[in-house]
Amino acid sequence: MKECTAVSFSSSANLGPGFDTMAIAHTAFHDRVRVSAIAGAGHGEIEVECDGIPGDADSNTAGRAARALYSELGLRDGIRITIEKGIPEGLGMGSSGSSAAAAVKAIDSSLDLGLSREDLVKFATEGEAASSGTPHSDNVAASIFGGLAFLVSTEPMKIHKFDIAKSLGILLIIPAIKMKHKTRVAREAVPKTITMGEHIVGSRRLSLLLQGLQSGDREIIRENMQDDIVERSRMHMFPFYEEIKKRSLENGAVGVSVSGAGPSIIEFTDMLTDTGKVVSGVSEIFESLQTKVSFSRCKTAGGAYVE
Amino acid sequence: MKECTAVSFSSSANLGPGFDTMAIAHTAFHDRVRVSAIAGAGHGEIEVECDGIPGDADSNTAGRAARALYSELGLRDGIRITIEKGIPEGLGMGSSGSSAAAAVKAIDSSLDLGLSREDLVKFATEGEAASSGTPHSDNVAASIFGGLAFLVSTEPMKIHKFDIAKSLGILLIIPAIKMKHKTRVAREAVPKTITMGEHIVGSRRLSLLLQGLQSGDREIIRENMQDDIVERSRMHMFPFYEEIKKRSLENGAVGVSVSGAGPSIIEFTDMLTDTGKVVSGVSEIFESLQTKVSFSRCKTAGGAYVE
Repeated sequence: MKECTAVSFSSSANLGPGFDTMAIAHTAFHDRVRVSAIAGAGHGEIEVECDGIPGDADSNTAGRAARALYSELGLRDGIRITIEKGIPEGLGMGSSGSSAAAAVKAIDSSLDLGLSREDLVKFATEGEAASSGTPHSDNVAASIFGGLAFLVSTEPMKIHKFDIAKSLGILLIIPAIKMKHKTRVAREAVPKTITMGEHIVGSRRLSLLLQGLQSGDREIIRENMQDDIVERSRMHMFPFYEEIKKRSLENGAVGVSVSGAGPSIIEFTDMLTDTGKVVSGVSEIFESLQTKVSFSRCKTAGGAYVE
Repeated sequence: MKECTAVSFSSSANLGPGFDTMAIAHTAFHDRVRVSAIAGAGHGEIEVECDGIPGDADSNTAGRAARALYSELGLRDGIRITIEKGIPEGLGMGSSGSSAAAAVKAIDSSLDLGLSREDLVKFATEGEAASSGTPHSDNVAASIFGGLAFLVSTEPMKIHKFDIAKSLGILLIIPAIKMKHKTRVAREAVPKTITMGEHIVGSRRLSLLLQGLQSGDREIIRENMQDDIVERSRMHMFPFYEEIKKRSLENGAVGVSVSGAGPSIIEFTDMLTDTGKVVSGVSEIFESLQTKVSFSRCKTAGGAYVE
């Protein structure tokens, strides 16, 4: 096997109505994962080192994704996975999914496996499952495919990649809030059943938001980047969200939603957005809450690639 | 007031996952509605004549739509509404909605009311409500707007019109089956609540079908013109449907669904469809059921217009 390094970007899932369906990759942050041979090993050994701290395969989603791939394909090459984490963890920006995506991308290239992007998503999803308790492929799909990834189905794994309008920028709002078992709590808040009326409204919004993000039509995005099913069920986790959304839209943000399971927030911006004012408005809100916040102005990212 | 005649087309609602959201207007059939003054009347009198048979306003959706419009705007001109029905009734092709659409379109023009298309849909919907027991605007929206009408919301009434790919043709399969209280039975079959998983699958399909119909991508249409929520709940009403769908897809139909509340079926076709074979395959099935069937090969229609 040859040494290989892959890079994969952060992402925001859901975007309002797209729970377990839609995620967008962004250039805000990225992980870098190198795979190399463990000299003399040949029984499927997997070692993981993350930001200088060594561990076994199960200590990290990248290792678990590698394990899933190894087990399915019956691989024997001993490998060392070295991760440089660039994406902050636990803030709803697809950090664990991105590490898993970069790891499978690097292994695929290193061992010339010729896997499809769908296969890469499948193995990376298995790696990520352990971190949330439920397999969900949205962030991983965005990190592998880039752009706006839309899950057509999970069995078989099928993803459609859409490009968003060039006029749209992305602003990430990243509060310094760590919540214990956040992803699990967020998933447990999701209702098991919904009414037919909620379904109709939710599916209209998803359809129209997908249209709007491609065309850049700010009215369509603004009206449909809303969710009364999943996002509303989690509102107790993000007491600051409604005020931030309201203030940002007043300052010309095109659309606002919680990023994945939060607490970060993703906003789309365009030429009519006063981004400086959005940032200062949001800063004021967090100041009054005595909570630190940071921002990232970025663009849609491409898919995972080998350096 | 001046005499005025409006024409409005047949339509197919739902198209699989788009219950209460999506309908497409087609050139297969049309209604023609003339409005003229009743000499000497001026207290909001509305008379209706349908294919030569006179009645009062409540005898027909066109009359009821006119009544709704009259009552909201406080109109006083006595009018006679003369309907030439071209769209067969009770077969799921938006017949009652189209009469209502043509009537409000003709009145709007006759009295120079300058109503928006959304207003026309609203009044026509009120007219249609009495025929199904529940107001639903999908067929009416297609007849007023033409093309593929997508309900953004009903309060306020907001509709987005999409154009489907030029490569797509429409084949309507029209079995000679009349069912008593069909629309009410069909609506009562719709589940009141659904699981989160059903919602996710349904909203993905609606989003992707809308994409596919615009681009003409036959794989996307075929995969997503499916519904396990509303269409499945009504399958006991259409025991012939699954066999027809299967056979038509084998003969190259792009996508197949029940048209509205049935029993008609709408199929999209393209250059790869052997439409002759589709028709003979479907004919065989209905022959074995000793049920008469007719077909209409047509295209997407424009919106209601004044002659």
